[in-house]
Amino acid sequence: MKVDAVDLFYLSAPSAGENGAPGQDTLLVRVRAGSYEGWGEGTASPLTAIAGSLAANPIVGEPLDTLDDIARIGSIVRSGSIDPGQANHLLSGIDTALWDLMGKRFEQPVYRLLGYPKAYPKMPYVSVRFGNTGVETIATAKQARQDGFRAVKFGRGPFGKSGPKEDQEQLVAAREGLGKDGILLVDAGAVWGEDVPRAIKALRSLRLTDVLWLEDPLTFGSLSAYAAVAEQAGHLRLASGAQCPTVQMAQSLMDYGRIGYAQIDVGRIGGISSAKRVIDLAIERKVTAVNHPANSHLAFSASLQCYAGLPEHRLCGYPVGTSPVVRDLTVEPLRPEGEEGLIYPPDAPGHGMAPNLTTMRAHLVNLEIVREGRTLYRTPEL
Amino acid sequence: MKVDAVDLFYLSAPSAGENGAPGQDTLLVRVRAGSYEGWGEGTASPLTAIAGSLAANPIVGEPLDTLDDIARIGSIVRSGSIDPGQANHLLSGIDTALWDLMGKRFEQPVYRLLGYPKAYPKMPYVSVRFGNTGVETIATAKQARQDGFRAVKFGRGPFGKSGPKEDQEQLVAAREGLGKDGILLVDAGAVWGEDVPRAIKALRSLRLTDVLWLEDPLTFGSLSAYAAVAEQAGHLRLASGAQCPTVQMAQSLMDYGRIGYAQIDVGRIGGISSAKRVIDLAIERKVTAVNHPANSHLAFSASLQCYAGLPEHRLCGYPVGTSPVVRDLTVEPLRPEGEEGLIYPPDAPGHGMAPNLTTMRAHLVNLEIVREGRTLYRTPEL
Repeated sequence: MKVDAVDLFYLSAPSAGENGAPGQDTLLVRVRAGSYEGWGEGTASPLTAIAGSLAANPIVGEPLDTLDDIARIGSIVRSGSIDPGQANHLLSGIDTALWDLMGKRFEQPVYRLLGYPKAYPKMPYVSVRFGNTGVETIATAKQARQDGFRAVKFGRGPFGKSGPKEDQEQLVAAREGLGKDGILLVDAGAVWGEDVPRAIKALRSLRLTDVLWLEDPLTFGSLSAYAAVAEQAGHLRLASGAQCPTVQMAQSLMDYGRIGYAQIDVGRIGGISSAKRVIDLAIERKVTAVNHPANSHLAFSASLQCYAGLPEHRLCGYPVGTSPVVRDLTVEPLRPEGEEGLIYPPDAPGHGMAPNLTTMRAHLVNLEIVREGRTLYRTPEL
Repeated sequence: MKVDAVDLFYLSAPSAGENGAPGQDTLLVRVRAGSYEGWGEGTASPLTAIAGSLAANPIVGEPLDTLDDIARIGSIVRSGSIDPGQANHLLSGIDTALWDLMGKRFEQPVYRLLGYPKAYPKMPYVSVRFGNTGVETIATAKQARQDGFRAVKFGRGPFGKSGPKEDQEQLVAAREGLGKDGILLVDAGAVWGEDVPRAIKALRSLRLTDVLWLEDPLTFGSLSAYAAVAEQAGHLRLASGAQCPTVQMAQSLMDYGRIGYAQIDVGRIGGISSAKRVIDLAIERKVTAVNHPANSHLAFSASLQCYAGLPEHRLCGYPVGTSPVVRDLTVEPLRPEGEEGLIYPPDAPGHGMAPNLTTMRAHLVNLEIVREGRTLYRTPEL
């Protein structure tokens, strides 16, 4: 079998998402080989990834017979770029599509191809915004519980922008709304920049309200600053990694930034192959792996495959927002199931998510890139 | 004064460079404000940066009166992107153009705006390829000396691909051709991947031949692996950083990767503002700063401004290759001067390099990006 076609699609939904939804643009990748088709999704700017693909080494015609061929194709893409992060950005969708395709070829879920004998359910967390007032935050937390989410990640809004007193009010409100048995996560969105003392001042109320993780208190990648905060954090753990452009960077966050939760964006770091490498490194370091909420349920399932076999790594970020690009890109979404509202990775070949071509076509962006009168890219047929 | 226009130009020269020349594509940025014009250059894929600019926060109309406005405009570009590396990629050319413009506005070289009272000359190194045989390598080294370069960086070719014995032959040849007083640098181009023991095995012959720095022995950003090699390297220092997408990453290479030379690509890390931050961090850590060879003499001069006032940080990478995009993008190149063949940062406003519009126009790529029938980008008038 050879790679017959690699097609990139830019999808965009006009309406903005709600409650901390990720971007409403997304990049879909379709790979065809033999009689098989695989789908992948990338997180960051589709136009930039498409532009990047025009300078990348071609992979059409490459043999695709064994799982090792996926890594080999990844090396081809990477070796053609002077910028590892940019190559991984493009590769994320391609690599995921290749795993999906090989899962169909071997009639196995991707998690099994990755060596996990079985998949365990994950507990989904939903991402919401802090309210402008404590009363609003209580209501948001209660709503999330009513929607069936025991774990809730609060972020943005006024948090971190005033002082420890105001932040404490917000955190107490979030805890009140969630109840004692709720799992409370906080995403600080680098609000304290490089100001380590301010971040440390916030720790007390985060611990008092039993926050499980504090995500990105500081500028992403400031390793020594993260370590300084982690040292003062006690049982509260730091989370980071969604912006990691490379496996090496994710490793550094664990080794030197002393994070306790490694967040992995399968659509950013280079796809399933790279995500699995980060997870293996996390296990060695007793760091807990967790996916980063994907745009759609296609990337969501892909992200779950990577750590489906690890019951102790139990949380997962659930895609939020009502945009069709989030909700309806697949024929079925992955819904919380049972009394506990858990997510079960699909027991189906590949990542198990069938693309919804109707939604895709409705949100497909017609794009053309022309160089000296010659068309380098034109949106392919879907 | 306000930013009136920001224009991005994709330049490309057809012929490949020689002797390890960087890519022959380059991104030029022109910023206009009031009656002033500034020019900047970015290193990585122009098409990707142009695509990235279409999703970026607009900066036209932003006030530009003080030097602080440059940092503020940088924050605007960064805050519009979920990918810090991608934002810095685009920002590199813009930030450099803003410094050039403000230098013209205040009639000062950029280095003086950065706080250096005077500029010191730098010793240029030229980048060449290891020969296929030792005899070829000797000849290459001799030629570089004849061309006036006392410092020469060897890379690529067979180096690191066979074994320590073959590498030693190459290094002995390079040293023989350079002479005892030559400065020998080696760029391993990550040839040993993640194989720390193989990299350590190579150290002996690098020390025997008095190599000043070993650049990127391993996969970029593998901090603990770099540190493990640095620990065994004795007086030989590691160099890395050209691929750094962020200041934070450069800091990590120093703090945890234990590099002795911080290589800074002003066209990649976010322009002059970011490069200066890395240099300040390097000084604090007793790490030596050095520019990474730029595409053209425009970015070359910009890179020198950032550490022009630091006489102890004496080496600089000299742009190589005979492509017009490298050689003729400016009216005059910066040539080695005097008996020692040193480079003097221009004593002229801004970065001091006047663009050669004739060359630029000859190599300008006509590009058009069309979304749903609407032109998002069309190559501007030059």
